[in-house]
Amino acid sequence: MSGTLYGLGVGPGDPDLITLKAHGVLQRVPVIAYPAPDEGDSLARAIAARHLPGNQTEIVIRTPMVPGAFPAHDVYDKYALEIATHLDAGRDVAVLCEGDPFLYGSFMYIFVRFVGDHRVQVVPGVSSIVACAAAAGAPLVSRNQVLTVVPATLDEGDLEQRIAGSAATAVMKLGRHASKVRDVITRLGRIDDAWYVEHASMESERVLPLADFTGESAPYFSMILVRQSEGEAGC
Amino acid sequence: MSGTLYGLGVGPGDPDLITLKAHGVLQRVPVIAYPAPDEGDSLARAIAARHLPGNQTEIVIRTPMVPGAFPAHDVYDKYALEIATHLDAGRDVAVLCEGDPFLYGSFMYIFVRFVGDHRVQVVPGVSSIVACAAAAGAPLVSRNQVLTVVPATLDEGDLEQRIAGSAATAVMKLGRHASKVRDVITRLGRIDDAWYVEHASMESERVLPLADFTGESAPYFSMILVRQSEGEAGC
Repeated sequence: MSGTLYGLGVGPGDPDLITLKAHGVLQRVPVIAYPAPDEGDSLARAIAARHLPGNQTEIVIRTPMVPGAFPAHDVYDKYALEIATHLDAGRDVAVLCEGDPFLYGSFMYIFVRFVGDHRVQVVPGVSSIVACAAAAGAPLVSRNQVLTVVPATLDEGDLEQRIAGSAATAVMKLGRHASKVRDVITRLGRIDDAWYVEHASMESERVLPLADFTGESAPYFSMILVRQSEGEAGC
Repeated sequence: MSGTLYGLGVGPGDPDLITLKAHGVLQRVPVIAYPAPDEGDSLARAIAARHLPGNQTEIVIRTPMVPGAFPAHDVYDKYALEIATHLDAGRDVAVLCEGDPFLYGSFMYIFVRFVGDHRVQVVPGVSSIVACAAAAGAPLVSRNQVLTVVPATLDEGDLEQRIAGSAATAVMKLGRHASKVRDVITRLGRIDDAWYVEHASMESERVLPLADFTGESAPYFSMILVRQSEGEAGC
């Protein structure tokens, strides 16, 4: 019988923010696979490290992160072939995903190559969005409010409109757009209800009121959260 | 020394979708509290049940769910007083929250009554949004895409605009608005990229392509997900 492909959310960074279910899968699968940059370590594997029983076959999915070259279809085709060899031999394979597999993860490129003709099971995980909110002590939305998750790459007008039209907004992929995002939020008069969070739930976690964040750019694992004030939230 | 108040995400329904961290807190706190309807059982407690060591003091936070009466500030004031008695006596208290504490949970009404003058720690959880996506096998967003979470109570025009302007949308709190939401998605030509999910990750889980969902209304724990097709996602 063919093996099962798991898309395994390992959570935002703290190894204890993995689910019991993902932990159980990690303990029993003979093969794990995980994304990694062209050079350097895999964050997903680092998160899972403490939970691995050892002696598993490991597939390192190295993909070029050059803008425009992603997603690299030929690269995913090659890794899919390697994963398929294990599945067809009856071995379960778990693909480790930072946060949740279906939220801004690269797992979808593996997923679409197997769904339909293999057994695929996705184990949802704690996303970086809720981890950032927890780190900042910032309740995001309640009742009939709108939450929007946007990339910082949107142009200023679009960004402004979406933040203005949402009770809470999570702005991802700050990079060199961080100061632009801060300017938009300042202009909207919401700087005092915004936080900057870096490496949420990790040892290097850093949380600042956005007003105190003066950087021009920000690392990959960072986020800005804007929410309405507690008065407006009806607290 | 005063105790710590935990906002504990217990995940979307499957008891195995709780984190190791939340599990550890549940095992050691002397007092747990959880929301429950005016009459009937607490879902949050049911999710956590298997992980409780027994012999804990339990505070049932019963709140009126009558529209307009929520949030009931006097009710939260009363429970906050009860929780404070334990904290001030040095006992940690964990408030159980379905999904994540800061995403559409009632924990924020407890949170604002303690933050600042008590130690409060929020343990993020797996939200129902990613659990629904996992159940439907529907990757939500990748790269520079926008995700919007909206309540079904928005008027048709607003709903249409937000769904049209997002790569993926999660529509919550369907209730008697379910057929309206389906009509809007049909009009946008996106019915074939939409799912209806009920009780994600629970034994009673039900997943349907939205085109096959013909109900006028839907239960409280249900959601409609719309996403772009895989071609558009660049898969």
